[in-house]
Formats: sequence, structure tokens, C-alpha cells
Amino acid sequence: MKCRVCRGPAVIDIRRHNANFCKEHFLRLCRDQVTKTIAEFDMIAPTDRVLVAVSGGKDSLAVWDLLLDLGYDADGLYLGLGISDYSDTSGQFAKDYAAGRGAKLIEIDLPSEYGFDIPAGAKAVKRAPCSACGLSKRHLFDKAAMDGGYDVVVTGHNLDDEAAVLFGNTLHWQTDYLGRQMPVLPARNGFPKKVKPLVRLGEREMAAYCVLQGIDYIVEECPMASGNKHIGYKEALNAIEATSPGTKHTFYFGFLARAAERFRDDVEAERDALLSCARCGAPTSNEVCQFCRLSERAAGAQPVKMSATRTKSPA
Amino acid sequence: MKCRVCRGPAVIDIRRHNANFCKEHFLRLCRDQVTKTIAEFDMIAPTDRVLVAVSGGKDSLAVWDLLLDLGYDADGLYLGLGISDYSDTSGQFAKDYAAGRGAKLIEIDLPSEYGFDIPAGAKAVKRAPCSACGLSKRHLFDKAAMDGGYDVVVTGHNLDDEAAVLFGNTLHWQTDYLGRQMPVLPARNGFPKKVKPLVRLGEREMAAYCVLQGIDYIVEECPMASGNKHIGYKEALNAIEATSPGTKHTFYFGFLARAAERFRDDVEAERDALLSCARCGAPTSNEVCQFCRLSERAAGAQPVKMSATRTKSPA
Repeated sequence: MKCRVCRGPAVIDIRRHNANFCKEHFLRLCRDQVTKTIAEFDMIAPTDRVLVAVSGGKDSLAVWDLLLDLGYDADGLYLGLGISDYSDTSGQFAKDYAAGRGAKLIEIDLPSEYGFDIPAGAKAVKRAPCSACGLSKRHLFDKAAMDGGYDVVVTGHNLDDEAAVLFGNTLHWQTDYLGRQMPVLPARNGFPKKVKPLVRLGEREMAAYCVLQGIDYIVEECPMASGNKHIGYKEALNAIEATSPGTKHTFYFGFLARAAERFRDDVEAERDALLSCARCGAPTSNEVCQFCRLSERAAGAQPVKMSATRTKSPA
Repeated sequence: MKCRVCRGPAVIDIRRHNANFCKEHFLRLCRDQVTKTIAEFDMIAPTDRVLVAVSGGKDSLAVWDLLLDLGYDADGLYLGLGISDYSDTSGQFAKDYAAGRGAKLIEIDLPSEYGFDIPAGAKAVKRAPCSACGLSKRHLFDKAAMDGGYDVVVTGHNLDDEAAVLFGNTLHWQTDYLGRQMPVLPARNGFPKKVKPLVRLGEREMAAYCVLQGIDYIVEECPMASGNKHIGYKEALNAIEATSPGTKHTFYFGFLARAAERFRDDVEAERDALLSCARCGAPTSNEVCQFCRLSERAAGAQPVKMSATRTKSPA
């Protein structure tokens, strides 16, 4: 297995590119793909102050690392979600990376600052944990970016993530979500600009990136996510990708090129109807935003006990 | 396991309906679903002359049987595609059904009437066999319907088929195919009306229908189809359906309700550009239609030898 660029010994094959790469040229490929994506979708200007949503997993640590290497002024934001040992461990990976790199990590702890954790919050509002977690993260990332004067929020969603979300949205033809599923959401109505610079890179590449760069990350999936539908969508697409490498890329980028525009009106209508939350002032389609409703119901609810979570760092 | 309708012993469960049925009420369900589909999409008028595309498989024999039971004036059309023993055997099932039912079966034999079979045709034009086969079937069904003065062509595509085709079309965002993927295509520009009355019924139900009605059919898949992408799409959707029954129905009917319209313009543009084939007069987007081009290249080409195909009838 030889590197496509230098013909030296390769350390990774990327089937959808029909190519193998050595360490040096694989890392360069990752940087080049991120540079290309940022330019193509006008994601980040050189002088922008960037806030990276950091979970302690491979994708968010890799995108932070890539942006710092590319010279961006990028701080991290870690949210402690109170998911037992899992949160403690993932937070530690985020802190260790920041300390080692000399980068600034902002930390917000949901239980101590808002009085509830995700398991209790989900229970209080009878939502699936991933739903309560997602809305909390979106709200707190947005708020931190606006409060801190950041120009853009970066998330580590990779091609596998975006293809799986797109698959779920098309399976149910959720036309408003389809209209919104872009690698860039511009700043608007009190929301910060949000971008996904990893959409040209897959899950496996991001794991390899971290291993090759010596970045330790939490390998386990969140214990609350097990059995969720998103994982089933990923598995279904993985089966197709295995026989037809490149299908995920075709699916996601074909959507952006030829279909996304057709669902845009559904989002515009929703956007025009936005109000300010009566409690916190955040943009919302109701009088009180979903996070404030979750927070009011969940605060003071008994924290949910969870079993211990094993974690390991990549070899 | 009790029948949802009469509480008698059930013979089949349908998970997406969360219900079980005895023989009598399952057969009634099939008829009711077909009646509902025909009415909902204005598929067939009571006085229409109907031509059913019959392959000898469960779906086409079941839809023919259902239409005859519902009182429609429905003849069958069997195309001999020259796929070795598979064609001989599937043709025999079609003939046996027609004879037993006292129904009229038109037979067209590709090798003897057009001088080539599907394996040789596919080779001659360097197409996948399923592609050469599909275009030949569409052309010859259309021609037979127009020549015979039929009002509507019926095919046995079921919910599993349509969901898998839709999945393939969305994975590649083939916007023209998406605009055309309807259970009814109206007659236009020299094409007959084409309808799919089984879109509310699944593959498994159609197999059960045939078994319960004592209809013998070819159980094997076409030997040329093995490993094609359509089968992979079915498997991926089956995995999701297994954990979330009803997903295929949601996917297909959600598309019809909320998305199909958005792709309609892509079809209109194509339709406006139709010519008449210089050889056969059929509507085509080129000077000579795809079937005539296939036919010219393939006729006289050596027939391709294939190994024997086992077949069995359901118990």
C-alpha cells in the first residue's frame, strides 16, 4: 500500500478517493479538505473570532486542532451535560487537549449553572435524551457565542454525521430540516453564524487524524445515545458505502447542489415568524424558548443516577 | 395471534399496521388497499381496458388476480426476455395462471421477434443487464398497450420496490427520476397511462397473498440481478424497517405528499423536448429511441449462454 502522493509506505486507505496516504500526506489531505470547505462555503474569514464546540470526541478535537494549525483564532467551548462519568471523562479530554496546545477552553456546567442534567431534563419534559441534549447544546453554544462576541461557531460534524442526518430527514421528508441542512448557517435574528468545516472528511479519517496527531479523545459513544435512530441510519449507509464507496459524498453534496434549494422556502417561512424568548431573549418560535421551558421543568428535578462508563484513549 | 377483525386465528402479522389477520381478512385487506389506491390516484376507470405486465413473479400475478377479482377487464402481457431457463420457467407460471383463471395472456418473445436476448443485448451496448432489460420492457409494454388499444398499463411494483427506487434516486439526487416517481403516469406524447396499484402493499404481503390464493409463481430472483444496487438499497431499508416498522411507508408516501412536486419541473422540461423515433415512431429524446439503438446493435450478436436456474413454487 503506497502513498498516492510520495509512493512511500501508506498508513491509511480512503476507498471513496480510491487512494492510500502516508502520515504526512494524509494530514495534509485533512488540512487541504478543511481549507477547501472553508473557502467553498465562505465559512470563516481570517480575522474572525472562532468558537469551537468541543465534546472531547475525535471530531471536535480534530477540527479545533486543524483550525489552530491553519492559523485561526479559535477558542473551545466545553459543555458539562451531567451525563455521569461520561461527561467527567470527555471533559477531561477537552481540558487536556487545551492545556497541551495552550488554547483557551471555556467551560459551562449544566448541572451547577442551570440546576439540571440531561438525564433528568429529558425525563422532566418527556423527550428522548438526544433531543433534550441537542436543544440544550444549541442554546448554550449560541448564547456563549453571542455573549463572547464570537463571529462564528464551529461544530465537528463530519460527512458520516451529515449523511446520516440527511438520510433521516429524507426518510421522513422533514422539509423544514432539509431546508436548513447546510454546512453554513448565516448569522440571523440573534443566532450566530454556524459552520461545519469537516463535511468533506469521514468519521474514520477523523479517528485516524487524532491517532496520528497524538490527540487523546473519548472513544465511547455517549451512553444515552445507544439504540437511537441516528445510529441505525449510519449503519444502513455504511452497508451501502461498503459496496459503493463514495455514496455518502454523492448523497450529501448532490443534495447541496441539486435539492437543498427546493426546500428553502419552508425555512424562510419559519424564520419570519421568530420572536424573542420572554425569559432569556433568545430567538424562538414560541413565547418562551425550548431551553427555558426545559430548564424550568427540569431544575430541581432529581438527578438521574447512571452506571459508570468506561473510556479509553486511542493507542 | 388473533385476527384484528374477527379475533379468529391469524395467519399473518403486518408490523407496520401493528396487526394480525386471518386468511379471509388478510385477502380482504389486500383488495381494500388496492381499491383505495386505485381511487386515491385515479388509476383505473371501471370501463378501462387494462394491460397487466406479467413476469411470472408474485407481484404481477397478485395484481392481475386482484384486478380480475375486483371486476376489471384485465389482460396480461408476458415478455420472453431470453434469460435462459429463468425466462422459460417464469413464462410457464404466467401461462399456467392465465389458463387456470381463463384470462387472456399476450406473449411477446424478444429473441424470436427482435433477434436478441437480454444478456446479449446488455453486452452489445455495454449496459448493466437490468438497465437493458428495463428499457426493453418499458418500450415493449408501451408499444403493446398502444397497439392493442389498452387504456392503462398496470405493473406490480409494491411498496418495497418503490421505497428502494426512491432511496436510490434520493441517494443520487436524480431530480428527473424523482419528478417522475409517481404511482400514476398519465398518458402523454404517445406513452400509455401507467399505474402501480400495489404501492400500499409490501413484498411479504404479496408472497402471502399468492400462497393463500394458491397462485404458483417463480420464487427466485432473476439470475442477472444478483448484486445489483437495488438489492442493496432494499436491504438497507429492511434493516431500518425492522427496528422502525412503517418507515418505508412514511418515506414513500411522505415523498408523494411533501416532496415530489418540488421535482416536477425537471420532468416537464424533458417532456417538452420529446421527438418521435426515426425507426419506430416511439416518443424519445433522441433521433432514434434507446430500444431501437439497443436492438440494432444487439440483433445478430451471439446469444449468451447461461447456467440453469432452479425454480420452485410456494408450498
